[in-house]
Amino acid sequence: MNRVLTDEVSECIGAELQLAGWIHHVRPLSQVTFVILRDRSGVAQVVVEDMELREWLAGLHAESVVEVIGIAKAEDRAPRGVEVHASSIRLVSASTADPPIELRRRVLKEQLPRLLDHAAVAVRHPSKRAIFAISAAAVAGFRRTLDALDFTEINTPKILGTATESGANVFTLDYFGRPAYLAQSPQFYKQMMVGAFERVYETGPVFRAEPHDTARHLAEYVSLDAELGFIRDYGDVMTVVRHAVAGMVDEIRREAAAAVELLGVEMPEVPDVVPAIDFGVGQQMIEDATGESVVGEPDLAPAHERWLGEWAQRESGCDFVFVTGYPLSKRPFYTHPDPDRPDRSNSFDLLFRGLELATGGQRLHRLEDYLVALQSRSLDADAFESYLEAFRYGMPPHGGFAIGLERFVARLIEASNVREATLFPRDIQRLAP
Amino acid sequence: MNRVLTDEVSECIGAELQLAGWIHHVRPLSQVTFVILRDRSGVAQVVVEDMELREWLAGLHAESVVEVIGIAKAEDRAPRGVEVHASSIRLVSASTADPPIELRRRVLKEQLPRLLDHAAVAVRHPSKRAIFAISAAAVAGFRRTLDALDFTEINTPKILGTATESGANVFTLDYFGRPAYLAQSPQFYKQMMVGAFERVYETGPVFRAEPHDTARHLAEYVSLDAELGFIRDYGDVMTVVRHAVAGMVDEIRREAAAAVELLGVEMPEVPDVVPAIDFGVGQQMIEDATGESVVGEPDLAPAHERWLGEWAQRESGCDFVFVTGYPLSKRPFYTHPDPDRPDRSNSFDLLFRGLELATGGQRLHRLEDYLVALQSRSLDADAFESYLEAFRYGMPPHGGFAIGLERFVARLIEASNVREATLFPRDIQRLAP
Repeated sequence: MNRVLTDEVSECIGAELQLAGWIHHVRPLSQVTFVILRDRSGVAQVVVEDMELREWLAGLHAESVVEVIGIAKAEDRAPRGVEVHASSIRLVSASTADPPIELRRRVLKEQLPRLLDHAAVAVRHPSKRAIFAISAAAVAGFRRTLDALDFTEINTPKILGTATESGANVFTLDYFGRPAYLAQSPQFYKQMMVGAFERVYETGPVFRAEPHDTARHLAEYVSLDAELGFIRDYGDVMTVVRHAVAGMVDEIRREAAAAVELLGVEMPEVPDVVPAIDFGVGQQMIEDATGESVVGEPDLAPAHERWLGEWAQRESGCDFVFVTGYPLSKRPFYTHPDPDRPDRSNSFDLLFRGLELATGGQRLHRLEDYLVALQSRSLDADAFESYLEAFRYGMPPHGGFAIGLERFVARLIEASNVREATLFPRDIQRLAP
Repeated sequence: MNRVLTDEVSECIGAELQLAGWIHHVRPLSQVTFVILRDRSGVAQVVVEDMELREWLAGLHAESVVEVIGIAKAEDRAPRGVEVHASSIRLVSASTADPPIELRRRVLKEQLPRLLDHAAVAVRHPSKRAIFAISAAAVAGFRRTLDALDFTEINTPKILGTATESGANVFTLDYFGRPAYLAQSPQFYKQMMVGAFERVYETGPVFRAEPHDTARHLAEYVSLDAELGFIRDYGDVMTVVRHAVAGMVDEIRREAAAAVELLGVEMPEVPDVVPAIDFGVGQQMIEDATGESVVGEPDLAPAHERWLGEWAQRESGCDFVFVTGYPLSKRPFYTHPDPDRPDRSNSFDLLFRGLELATGGQRLHRLEDYLVALQSRSLDADAFESYLEAFRYGMPPHGGFAIGLERFVARLIEASNVREATLFPRDIQRLAP
């Protein structure tokens, strides 16, 4: 007999069928025992009347893996209006103890550290699985959108010979006896590949030796990176960011609809034109509204990002807002200045419900501009030689952006900690499981 | 005026249009100068008659980025039967020197080390770009196939607290003052996630501190990993491998057709049933045919894999062959033994044209089997605690496989070195660019 998934049982009423999955919960009543069986598609209610079978079930630990053979019957009070009356249950693989997470609860009651200590068990819970179904759909939507825009997917090295991009917060490793570094981003490589493919993207891990133990920082996360050449200005980059985010949201709606419903996620609308506000104008608005002295600060504090997020919501009914023209001094050396305001940059952040979701902008593309930019920051051009080679031999105006996957998903599901959207988070404390 | 791509010019005959791209080659004749302009879609022939423009062109280095405005005219002798008669050419970004790779040649003449030293330039060549178009299509085909089979994409950590899988060839890093290790594969995590999603895959970097400087080993490569639960035996895993490889081949045919043609790649057929041969039977055949003493050896040498590849080609006309039932002693501790032959394993390799392309098999799924397997290999179960937790709480029979992306592409394009299919290879010598 072929296995049927729990979400297919309602199409099989009256038929004998075989289910397989985990014993999510056993509830013995006076006359029958109800077993909630969980598989990758959901849960099904199994009814057991046979006394011997009921006694045997009482001795099993939750999470044991079983095969059930029975008849599907309509039952209004059961999940999806159907239950399976079991004729036999076969033990496939026994759980050897009661699990450290009470998976049977509709809402898990354990605190985050305990859930993360037992992540391999906790993620079996439907509410946890739903988060990672959303995460997978988000990545797929990003790729699908950029594929349609003629981008080429690339794979760039994560082990680097020089810790060049910022110098700080870099992990060092022993590379056959010499030092090497883990990539903090594919930034240099994706720019170099504009010279070959014009439009590239990469979805992969990046590494930050982030010493701050906060709710929104991880030492390893998934970065959705893109870079494109032959742009007029950074507006072209913002257009692609908008497409990418809209594609992610669409794919989640389409491919993770059950997860969205289970978690009660309020999906955002991505308008054709996302509101944008200049950094300095935004600061002035915040200062005028709050009385706080903000104008002249080189960056936005999280509270200011939240203020601008609420402003965009109020003014445009939009969950997203671009902040443009950040001070050049706070952006990396490869950032293109605003030709009209040399202390400002052609860069942006995209805020999603008041949280920085993506960072991007136009990059320098002329070798001589790089040499000046490096010198003005007292950086040694020799250390950047293999990067600069791409600019020595002709590079078009280009720009790009990066979206932090876990941060996006966490904000979407209203998690208070980015670790909730990470299967096995890494931070200054946590290196296992 | 909007930019037109070079592969769209033939649809614009008679029209004025704008091209943008790199100066691939300049060929001055007595009356005109031909410019081969390259963009992400290919190359176009640009004809320049204006003397001032011709003199200016003569002073430009190859790889300078330009915008061309001109009229498209039919011309049988030009690529795609069309050329653009330029009225103006604007310099967008100058190449500052002659490039270190002679990109204008149809076939690059530089040796591999030089090509890799200047990878950011070399990959601009159409033949190199074609390789990575094939690579991108292969990954997309893998994902598309597994998505259709109800697999969930996961992202697992690359930084690990314990160097557990084999102990050897692991990179060590400094993780906030304590030692940590780079993942050699997502093996443990993908198995753990079978407990939550039943069917998972991951496409991402893996790291091997491979001390051998060979044509087929890399210190970092892209692994296409999958794992699935509720299997009957490892035949179910082989079925998914076949689907995955067929999906990769289909996607390359569909999405990288121009690259396949340019490189003259002979695409393989993936039959519905890929031939399979038992490890011991294969050894006996090799011994009978070659006189070499092979039976009883614990593994196949590369020459033996080639022999079996030729055998499959001869007997079945097939580029692929499964070798099954490898000795248990040469497989990792989590490998499931063959119940009928305890010294053999429920594992397989998939050979593609005589080269190991994928490795996989059934895994142990019962906690007690793991404890025995670890003990028999003198491994400390405590070091594996976070992995074993998944098995403590009920895991179904499962198995999986991994495909090395670069190795597959290299074999497909008949590259003699896997580095040719790697944008920026990492090996014991090479850490840049």
